[in-house]
Amino acid sequence: MTDDLPSPALLPSGLTDLLPPEAAREAALVEAMHAVFATHGYERVKPPLLEFEDSLLAGSGAAMADQTFRVMDPDSHRMLGLRADTTPQVARIAATRLAGVARPLRLSYSGQVLRVRGSQLAPQRQIPQVGIELIGHDSAEADAEVALLGVEALAAAGIVSPSLDITLPTMAPALLDAAGAQGDLRRKLARALDRKDAAAVTALAAEAGPPANGLTALLTAAGPADGALAALAQAALPPVARAIADNAAAIVASIRARAPELRITLDPVEFRGLQYHVGVAFTLYGPGQTGELARGGRYLSGDEPATGMTLYPDAVGRAVLPRPLPPRVFVPRGGDAAAAATLRAQGFTTVAALSAADTPHSLRCSHILRGTVAALIEENA
Amino acid sequence: MTDDLPSPALLPSGLTDLLPPEAAREAALVEAMHAVFATHGYERVKPPLLEFEDSLLAGSGAAMADQTFRVMDPDSHRMLGLRADTTPQVARIAATRLAGVARPLRLSYSGQVLRVRGSQLAPQRQIPQVGIELIGHDSAEADAEVALLGVEALAAAGIVSPSLDITLPTMAPALLDAAGAQGDLRRKLARALDRKDAAAVTALAAEAGPPANGLTALLTAAGPADGALAALAQAALPPVARAIADNAAAIVASIRARAPELRITLDPVEFRGLQYHVGVAFTLYGPGQTGELARGGRYLSGDEPATGMTLYPDAVGRAVLPRPLPPRVFVPRGGDAAAAATLRAQGFTTVAALSAADTPHSLRCSHILRGTVAALIEENA
Repeated sequence: MTDDLPSPALLPSGLTDLLPPEAAREAALVEAMHAVFATHGYERVKPPLLEFEDSLLAGSGAAMADQTFRVMDPDSHRMLGLRADTTPQVARIAATRLAGVARPLRLSYSGQVLRVRGSQLAPQRQIPQVGIELIGHDSAEADAEVALLGVEALAAAGIVSPSLDITLPTMAPALLDAAGAQGDLRRKLARALDRKDAAAVTALAAEAGPPANGLTALLTAAGPADGALAALAQAALPPVARAIADNAAAIVASIRARAPELRITLDPVEFRGLQYHVGVAFTLYGPGQTGELARGGRYLSGDEPATGMTLYPDAVGRAVLPRPLPPRVFVPRGGDAAAAATLRAQGFTTVAALSAADTPHSLRCSHILRGTVAALIEENA
Repeated sequence: MTDDLPSPALLPSGLTDLLPPEAAREAALVEAMHAVFATHGYERVKPPLLEFEDSLLAGSGAAMADQTFRVMDPDSHRMLGLRADTTPQVARIAATRLAGVARPLRLSYSGQVLRVRGSQLAPQRQIPQVGIELIGHDSAEADAEVALLGVEALAAAGIVSPSLDITLPTMAPALLDAAGAQGDLRRKLARALDRKDAAAVTALAAEAGPPANGLTALLTAAGPADGALAALAQAALPPVARAIADNAAAIVASIRARAPELRITLDPVEFRGLQYHVGVAFTLYGPGQTGELARGGRYLSGDEPATGMTLYPDAVGRAVLPRPLPPRVFVPRGGDAAAAATLRAQGFTTVAALSAADTPHSLRCSHILRGTVAALIEENA
């Protein structure tokens, strides 16, 4: 043994142990979110953690190819991938075993995904996910349903006033296409939009000519949805971009009709994030500096229109106040087993003494079973 | 594309999709079992799916080395293992981050384990597990607590009359040691015991001499615990074997005191299964031909005495009758959203129509929202 050897406690970067009480809290949040999805008719599927890489990385899965751990399967002698995202697996299930079920198909899932590399901002390489997919329907109502279910699931988890950020990842490409901006100019414009550098966007858009010069107006339109939609309505947009704007307006209207209080922001030319969105993209934030709690949007599930949302229970767990844990009741040796069972049914946790060395203090109990009653242990008693 | 290419629906052997309603049922069983463990003071931990192989395969983890998928970590350039068992990870957590918590430590976990190869009898290579570990206490009461918690968790999952099979994996080696049976003779005796071949055991034990000839009596003693314990009490046993028999009697007595109705069998010379048990080993069966629902026993968690139990929610799911699913209520477009929310709070599932093409039949609904009421849809209506 030398000091150069890593400690056995050391885990690989981005892979962590969840300890009590966090592990139980995360599991409770996952089930609370699933309960919401189930009451709206979303049915749970559970794809395996490993599958053939060529099916895992097909379609929308291709975006995660660089982030996927691969292992050789000694049985088939083919390469397997550890899923880095669950949506492509749900798409596979929808296209194969559930091909005969009438559309739209409402599915939910939860589980772990693994990534080859973490980023500085998101160092985790094992990420718990809970998600829904609404497959086989292309409408503003479908997008609104998924966004609102994300909000409702966060509410069930204890996030009281989330905000929904809508982006239109196809808008900037549509404007660049309409302007005929190609090659170097297009790459520069995309970078300037990504940095939200209005001066650079204005200069480059002028170089590209109309309708790219609409980009500056759209860049500054980002903000509360009503204002952003008004700016989109006034902007001179080519037909493809106009359709994208109209679709965004319809989705916001559909959400507003059912959740008039929800804070919605809209950023028309933001196009970061998952590469596979073909319509709106959603991000849900909690109040304050809680970071992203969920992401979603419209995509292609195989060749079917689909919209979905992935929630991050680890981020949600950090954003909500923990619920108090049940009081722990010390059950002395020979204590009344029926009384202990009654206490458990009432919501107490009972912890049995196994030897004379066990004390209420060592077992972290606030109460002790005296006769058939849970008695509070007085401090310094 | 040629016919030789595998279908995209094909998953690797032993890796499967769980579809509705099985995926939701399995998750509900897992949470029902965890709820039992939590009320007895078992606190949940969640180790990562991947960790350094040298820590994953240390101690009791060595038994799974052949069954562990390995990948190179591009970050650390060290080999990672995908866990094939969770107990070694819980041992690592207990020995490191929870080293300062007073013993006994009561921990629970759930999640997936992955195995390189399935067997003919158990082809699955991804296995869901729920488990408990009671670490830092060496007593019959600790073993009894864990066995009884397994029974109580199965009851919560709907298994009404399980049976507990106790084996003493150290008994046969203790008798072979006492007889001085080594080399070829020992291997032959071990094989004969494994096949339960009484004639061969008798012949080989005679060759080995006393006290190996106690093996035949113990082989035929297997059966209901009371008879097996009586046979053990009457057998002439060397001291180490006598201590093993006394410990088994104490554990059975402790279990009987709290669960007099539980069916318990005892097989003194069976020693199949996980290689790391240092005391009793447990197997829980459901009624009828349900197969093993849980396994456990006494082991070393690092250098601490420990006892634990792993339950198999997939096997439990096959052994219990499914609970009926909530009725699905079709909500027509423009249907009363508040009424639908009330129905969900009452336990109904509501499914929203997104277009005129959606019908109660296509969305598999038994009810339809009429005004504020869920009306049963009549057959052939």
